[in-house]
Parts: sequence; structure tokens; C-alpha cells
Amino acid sequence: MKTEYLDRIRCASLRGRVTSAQDAARWIKDGMTVGMSGFTRAGDVKLVPAALAERARTEPLKITLMTGASLGNDTDKRLTEAGALARRMPFQVDPVLRAAINRGEVMYIDQHLSETVEQLRSRHIAPVDVAIVEAVAITEDGAIVPTTSVGNSASFAILADKVIVEINLAQPAGLEGLHDIWIPKKRPLREPIPIMSADDRAGTPWIAIPPEKIVAIVLSDQPDSTSSVLPPDAETAAIAGHLIRFFEKEIEAGRLTQELLPLQAGIGTIANAVLAGFADSPFDRLTMYSEVLQDSTFDLFDAGKLDFASGSSITLSPEKSRQVFRDFDRYRDKLVLRPQEVSNHPEVIRRLGIIAINTALETDIYGNINSTHVLGTHMMNGIGGSGDFARNAYLSIFATKATAKGGKVSSIVPMVTHVDHTEHDVDIIVTELGLADLRGLAPRERADVIIEQCTAEPYKAMLRSYVDEAKQRGGQTPHVLEQAYAWHTRYSETGSMLEP
Amino acid sequence: MKTEYLDRIRCASLRGRVTSAQDAARWIKDGMTVGMSGFTRAGDVKLVPAALAERARTEPLKITLMTGASLGNDTDKRLTEAGALARRMPFQVDPVLRAAINRGEVMYIDQHLSETVEQLRSRHIAPVDVAIVEAVAITEDGAIVPTTSVGNSASFAILADKVIVEINLAQPAGLEGLHDIWIPKKRPLREPIPIMSADDRAGTPWIAIPPEKIVAIVLSDQPDSTSSVLPPDAETAAIAGHLIRFFEKEIEAGRLTQELLPLQAGIGTIANAVLAGFADSPFDRLTMYSEVLQDSTFDLFDAGKLDFASGSSITLSPEKSRQVFRDFDRYRDKLVLRPQEVSNHPEVIRRLGIIAINTALETDIYGNINSTHVLGTHMMNGIGGSGDFARNAYLSIFATKATAKGGKVSSIVPMVTHVDHTEHDVDIIVTELGLADLRGLAPRERADVIIEQCTAEPYKAMLRSYVDEAKQRGGQTPHVLEQAYAWHTRYSETGSMLEP
Ligand SMILES: CC(C)(COP(=O)(O)OP(=O)(O)OC[C@H]1O[C@@H](n2cnc3c(N)ncnc32)[C@H](O)[C@@H]1OP(=O)(O)O)[C@@H](O)C(=O)NCCC(=O)NCCS
Ligand SMILES: CC(C)(COP(=O)(O)OP(=O)(O)OC[C@H]1O[C@@H](n2cnc3c(N)ncnc32)[C@H](O)[C@@H]1OP(=O)(O)O)[C@@H](O)C(=O)NCCC(=O)NCCS
Repeated sequence: MKTEYLDRIRCASLRGRVTSAQDAARWIKDGMTVGMSGFTRAGDVKLVPAALAERARTEPLKITLMTGASLGNDTDKRLTEAGALARRMPFQVDPVLRAAINRGEVMYIDQHLSETVEQLRSRHIAPVDVAIVEAVAITEDGAIVPTTSVGNSASFAILADKVIVEINLAQPAGLEGLHDIWIPKKRPLREPIPIMSADDRAGTPWIAIPPEKIVAIVLSDQPDSTSSVLPPDAETAAIAGHLIRFFEKEIEAGRLTQELLPLQAGIGTIANAVLAGFADSPFDRLTMYSEVLQDSTFDLFDAGKLDFASGSSITLSPEKSRQVFRDFDRYRDKLVLRPQEVSNHPEVIRRLGIIAINTALETDIYGNINSTHVLGTHMMNGIGGSGDFARNAYLSIFATKATAKGGKVSSIVPMVTHVDHTEHDVDIIVTELGLADLRGLAPRERADVIIEQCTAEPYKAMLRSYVDEAKQRGGQTPHVLEQAYAWHTRYSETGSMLEP
Repeated sequence: MKTEYLDRIRCASLRGRVTSAQDAARWIKDGMTVGMSGFTRAGDVKLVPAALAERARTEPLKITLMTGASLGNDTDKRLTEAGALARRMPFQVDPVLRAAINRGEVMYIDQHLSETVEQLRSRHIAPVDVAIVEAVAITEDGAIVPTTSVGNSASFAILADKVIVEINLAQPAGLEGLHDIWIPKKRPLREPIPIMSADDRAGTPWIAIPPEKIVAIVLSDQPDSTSSVLPPDAETAAIAGHLIRFFEKEIEAGRLTQELLPLQAGIGTIANAVLAGFADSPFDRLTMYSEVLQDSTFDLFDAGKLDFASGSSITLSPEKSRQVFRDFDRYRDKLVLRPQEVSNHPEVIRRLGIIAINTALETDIYGNINSTHVLGTHMMNGIGGSGDFARNAYLSIFATKATAKGGKVSSIVPMVTHVDHTEHDVDIIVTELGLADLRGLAPRERADVIIEQCTAEPYKAMLRSYVDEAKQRGGQTPHVLEQAYAWHTRYSETGSMLEP
């Protein structure tokens, strides 16, 4: 056995379990529920799912696949193309899988990311038969040291009958010590989560399970897929600018200090760009209590703006990834990766008082948010952790560009076609055009501010006339029900929300 | 001074502050924000608001009124009729105020009940100038002992500059000791809420404030308004029956024990009737961790089914009220009243694992819930605490009768016209016709179960054909957008959702 293996598989009795991905994949039978590591493409298992997809091409094999969040390495694509996915939860971002979901071929259970393992523990959903977890190492006692994400891996490994570990030699050994695995006790013995600050540690740096549950170990050296977020542009810079000015005013008003409060930023290009914009801000000694740590987190470390970041995964662009993992010692002590149940837990989010920045596909004039369903029907990605944060944040901010599809779609509409976040969970809406501060406003007042501050012409005038007509009919939240989705149906028919 | 006063105002230095309601009301000036005690009609202040309404008839006086939840004694009605309400939050149930809200005359900020004081503390909303709190007594140290509700009274009194106390001699002195006032520390010193079980106590039995803040004391002897919920009927009994059978199956499956888990039940006739139905159930040693304790709580105590109930208020029918307060010593040790921030706190709700039973006005085939907006526009009451519980519950149940308005309205519709609770926060939907267990199902599957189990003919057939057409267009959550609200617009036009 090569020396690396000795380092990486320190529990001697498990060394005999090293096998091929194909052999490991045989533990998975048709109809099983499989829990895989992986959160926003980071720390996912690479070889066993590929072997599984291969097998599904030639024999009947359909599984329920649970993960932390999205996977990299085309795993969702391969499994979908092989017809191997019966059900999928709680999140995905893959175009091929997305299309299959929208055709109704894969049953997709879109969930608040903090809730999946709670439902497993309560046995409200089918138990995980096999967990497959990527690790940098297995300790002397057979505990698993995860790689670039924790996600749901710990609970999957604890709750599953059988565990397959992919030891990834391409993941830096220096990741060891980064994780903080805390799992709640069973009710009625459940205790408070002992996290009072973003940098608190509550658990162990590994996932402790009975080593005999590890039925197979596969060695891999395939890197994580890198992130596909686009760089900041003029519009995302404008959004960041509005937010920076807003926070400056909050500081002036004595509601915040230069340190703000722990930040969360959602997935995607916009949230990343907004956070990156904070490198040129007067704020200082920032902390993050977030899910995914993207390029912007490390930009802020490098700019000397950020003191500490807590997350559930690290997902970087190719260049950033090379730099960060080369200089990892610079960042190590400023990072912790937690189970998503903890990173996203309402208890901790409320306690710490998080500033949450998430992204909308569309928002309506009353501040309800659609982050998931294009035209109310077709799934984009999923709600992810946005609800965990938006509901419980000190300040819940939603960012979006004012228009999409070259101006043919307004991101501000009379009524969202799908509600992921209700008006109660939205304090601030910001587009490149401006920021709507909705705190303490009633729906009619919210409409005025959102239309005035955030909306692009000529949609602004269209929204004003919608609201005027709606108000004639009265109500707390005035609408012209038979016209509420006229913009969306026009877009479906003509390719534009604009009046011809 | 009468001896009762000596008992009830034990802080001698405050006795000189006793004054008339009219004089006390003079502390409130035009444009102020006033925080009043009162939650689901219980423990509200009675005389000062009446004096305030009187004054508003003859001089310019418009206030922002914050409470725990709804008020009794026609306070909202009187203040509305006097034109004294500029803004109102976070909840109401008064028909006159409701009409003014829906005309756009009063700005109503409908909130998750756990969040109001958090927003005050963060200064996201205007500060409370004057707090007016009903009390059974003021202690030697000038601390306030609330009456039949805690609601937001403690934080209002702590955060306000000035406090007016209404000592209500009609409220039983035996209420003293019932309350448990726990207030979080300021961030970053905020700690876990030390409640691990429904009967845990974490704070003090009074609201401690500097006595000099108490600027006026008014003596009243007006009882709480009684509850207006209707008695159980055949349909609510059927709903209770479906739920009892469901829980029996959960016990058989080993997911619950005879004690179930702490119960929450929402406001209104249906939730009360459902809980009352548990008196004839096999369950035993139940506990409640809820907001308002209605008649059903005491029915369950009397039936020997309930061991303990935690709430934020006690609101009873006239007969029940007489009996309960006559025999109060029988119940005292089995009750605690908490600030609504604590009774409804996501942290405690998730920790304890609550079974939450709330009521929908309408639900759609995918399990999104509208509990507040009739036809998507007109406010009924408000979201109240339903979101605090539904989002964080172990099991989130929504009950509704299958139809309303004599069958002319289906409570199950293609798409709800307003979303208070998204499909992610809804595990079970139950009507008198049956129960839909939605756990672990994707939207298309949810639609099949909801239509099959819960819907009344002929709406069932209409929903089936809607879904069939929608599926042709595809999507995770199929819809025919231009038809989504056809039922509602038909109802507006013809008085019925049925096809002519
Ligand atoms: C909402 C979300 C898709 C935005 O992603 P983003 O990369 O920041 O935003 P973009 O503006 O680049 O939009 C992404 C795509 O949606 C399209 N889009 C945006 N608004 C749209 C709208 N109103 N209607 C239709 N399509 C729209 C864009 O055109 C773009 O499409 P393309 O990829 O074909 O060019 C993404 O943030 C998301 O999935 N959020 C939900 C989950 C979440 O918030 N998680 C956070 C915690 S995990
Ligand atoms: C939803 C809610 C109004 C139901 O109240 P309820 O008394 O149990 O239910 P009912 O079926 O008797 O309905 C109440 C009224 O709504 C009407 N209604 C019910 N469904 C309706 C629908 N789909 N469309 C229009 N009206 C409807 C009923 O006809 C009835 O009207 P009426 O008073 O004119 O007869 C009430 O539970 C509520 O306000 N909930 C929101 C707040 C909450 O859940 N709080 C819990 C924690 S505080």
C-alpha cells in the first residue's frame, strides 16, 4: 500500500476495505435511498456515482438520491441520463436533471436545507440505506474527516446502515481540523446548540461512526468541480454600491457598527458579486455565518476586511481555488465548516443576528419573492438555504437585476408566480437601480417604494397603473386577480413582458 | 385607599400615581407609538384605550398601535371609529378595523408574532413611546405582574420611555406566579433560551422595570372579552377523527408515543374543535407548547389527557371562563404564560419538536396555504403565529373545511391567491373528507393526494382536469397560469366557484 494511504486511512482494520468504485457501487441496489456528500459542488463523491451511473445503463437501477446541496462532476447529469434517479432531494443545479424534473420524470423534493436530516431522523422520509462520503482521511478510530463540504454527510453516515468512503488524495490534507461536527441529541434530551459566535466550535473535527459500518473505501484523486459564477459586472457593482450606502446609513443611525453583523450570502453570480463589492467598503472586521463560501469570502480575507467565516462548503473558481489551497495555512484558522443543519439552523441564525443576502428570480410589488420557479412552473435550482436565512435574519435582503432576458422580462412583477419567501421575510429589495427599505411598511407602502426605487422603465409605469387599478378594488394587498399574471402569459406568448 | 389597592400596588412609592383613565391617556400624544398588552383578547388594557378613543373624537390624535395580538373590549373598533389608528401591528381580528384596513385607511403590518419585539429591539421599526399594560399587581420593587396574557407586554414595558399600568381588580389575584418572563440579552451576548421542555421556567414571574417609568396607574374591574369560537360540529369532529387516526398510525409505526409531542393549536373555531376532539382519543399525558390556550386546553385537562400547557394567553368562552377561574388552583401548576417571543420562538419550537395545528382559508393542490387574504386581497385576520410554528414544527398540519360559503367556495384551489405558508412548511392537510400526508412528496405527487383525499365533489373533478392540462405544459409545479385564478374570478363575478 502506498504511504499516502497509510496517512489517509489511519484505522488499520479498515485498510482491507479499499476497493474499486465498481465494487463499492455494488452495495447500492435498485430502489435504495442513497445519501451522498456534496454541497454546492464541493466535497461530493466522484467515482462511486459515476460507477453507479455506468451500471444503471445496463441493469434496472433507480435510486432516491439525497445530498447536502448541488453536486459537481456531472454526477446529477450522468445519473439522470442513465435513468437512475427516481427521486432527488433537497437541491440541485444541473441543467440535465432540471429538464428531467420539469418533464416530471424525476420527483424532486425541494427543501429548506436545514430540514432534510431532521426529517430523516424523524423518519418522515425513507431512511438512507447507504451513505457515500468523500473524506481526506479516516482516523485511527474509524471516524471520517470530510473534505471541502460537510453538508448532510455526518447525519447520512450516522443514520445509514452502510457507509462508503471515497478518500480523495487530491483534496489537501490540511483540510483536517477545519470541520466542526455537532449533532443534536434525541428528543426529549435535545439541548441548545452551543454556538454564540460565528467562530465558536461545538463538536468534533470528524464524523464519528462505528468503523464496521464502513463497507468500502475507494481512492480518488479527482478535484472538485469549480464554480461557474460570473465575475461582477456594472449591475452587480451598482447593487453592491446601494447596499454599502444603506449599511453606512445604518451605522450613522447607530443601528449597526463598522463590523456589521455576521453575513450570509446566497449562491450564484449576484450574491457573490455583492459580497465581493464589500472589499471596497468602509466596513471592517466582518464575519460570515453562511452556507457556501465563494470566491468573495477569500477576496474579503485578502482585503483584510473579514475576520472569520463559518460555512458548510467552500466552492471556488479555478484560479481562486488554486490560490486558496496553495496558501491554505493563511486561511485555516479563520474558517470552520459545519453540518448544514447547524450553518442554517434558525436557532443560531436568530441568536447571532445575521445579515442575509439572497437572490430572487422575481419579486412582486408587495415584496414576495420567487427564487425558484420560472413562470411559476419550471424549476430553476431550488429554495436551498435561502428560507432558513431569510426567515430568521436580522436583516433579510434580496437582490436581483431589475430585468432579465435582455429587458424582455421584468424582475419586478405585479404578483410573483410562485412564492418562496413571503413579504414577512423580506426587509430589503435591491436592484442595480436602487434599494427599497421595506421595514415597518404595510403592503400598499411597500408597493410604492419597490416600484419607485427598484423598477426599470417602462415597467415602472405599467406597475403604477396596475396598482392604481388594484387599489380601486381595495384590500390589504390590492390586486387585479384576472390581470395578475398577464405579464407572464404575454411573455410566454410573445417573448416579452412589454406591451406590444 | 381601599385594601385591595394595597395588595395590588405593593410598591408604596407608586401608590400616588393612581389616576383616572382620562388623565393617564394624556401621556399619549398625536403621532406616538403605543404598545398595549393583549393577546387573543386576553389581558388587554381596557380603560385607557377607551379614554384615548374618546379624546380622538375631539382632537387630532393618530397613533401607531402595537399589541401582542388581537384585543377585546372593542378597543380596535373604538379606535378605528375615532380615526385614531394610523398604523396597526402585528395582528387583529376586529371587523371594523379589518374593513378600514381593507379600505387602505389603516396601515396594517401583519407580522410573524415572534418577530415584533425583535424588530423593536433592532430599531427597525419606530420605538414604543408609551406602553400600557394590564396587571394583577405591582410588586414591592415596582415590577409588573401581568394578567391573562403576556404577549409583547414585557418588551413594550422594558423598551418604552413611559409605562401606564391598568390594575384589573376583576382578574384573579391567583394569576400571580403563572408567568415566566425571559428576555434575551443584547447581541453579541445573546444566549440560548434555556427551555428544554414545555414546563421549564427560564425567567421571573413579573416584568422588572425601573418603577419610576410607571407614570400612571389606573384601576379597572372590567373582565376580558370572552372568546367567540363556535362549538365543534360534525365537520370539525370529522377533522379531529382523521387526525386521531393519523396519530394512531404514527404510534404504530414507532414514530410517536402515546404522549405524542408538545401540541400547538392555532386560533379559531376549527383548531379549538380539533384539539377538543383529542379528549376522546387514546393519547395520554399530552403537553402543549402553544400561543393561546382556548377552551379545548381545559377540556383536555379535565379529561385527564393533558399534563401541562405553555402559552402566551388564556382566552375562554363565558362558561369556561367562569369555571376555570373559579377552580383556578386545580390548573395553576399545570400552566405557564410566556412572552410570545418565547412561546413562538423557532429555537424552542425546533428543539421541542412541536405538532402544530393551524387553519387555512384555502390551500392549493401543491400544498401552499393562504390563511389571511380572502380572494388574495382582503385581509381576514393576519398570519399571527402560524408561520412561527408551521416552519419549525416536527409536524405541520393545516386544517380547513373542504368548502366555505355553503359550498360555493372550494377551500382547495388550483393556486392559492396569497401564500402565507409555502409547500415546504406543510406536512399534512386535513379536511372533513380526509387527510393528505405530504411528507417526502414532490409537488406532482402532492397534488394527487390532496385532490384525492381532501377535496369535495364537484371540485375534485375540476381540479383533476386542471392538473391534467397543467402537466401538458410541464414543470416541477405545473400550472395553467391564465386559468390559475379562474375559480376566484368566477366567484367574484357569479358568487360561486362552480362552473355554471
Ligand atoms: C435565483 C438564482 C437562480 C439567481 O442566480 P444568479 O446566477 O445570481 O442570477 P442571474 O441573474 O444570473 O440569473 C440566472 C438565470 O436566471 C434567469 N432569470 C433571472 N430572472 C428571471 C426571471 N424573472 N424570469 C426568467 N428567468 C430569469 C437569468 O436570465 C439567468 O438565465 P441564464 O442562466 O439562462 O442566463 C439563484 O440565486 C438561486 O438558485 N437561488 C435560489 C437558492 C438560493 O437562494 N440559495 C441560497 C442559499 S443556498
Ligand atoms: C384562517 C382562519 C380565518 C379560520 O378561522 P376559523 O374560525 O377556524 O374558520 P372558519 O371556517 O369558521 O372560517 C372563518 C371565516 O372565513 C370564511 N372562509 C373560510 N374559507 C374561506 C375561503 N376559502 N374564502 C373565503 N372565505 C372563507 C368562512 O366562511 C368564515 O366566514 P364567516 O365568519 O363570514 O362565516 C383563522 O384560523 C385565522 O385567522 N388564521 C390565521 C392566523 C393563525 O393561524 N393564527 C394561529 C396562530 S395565532
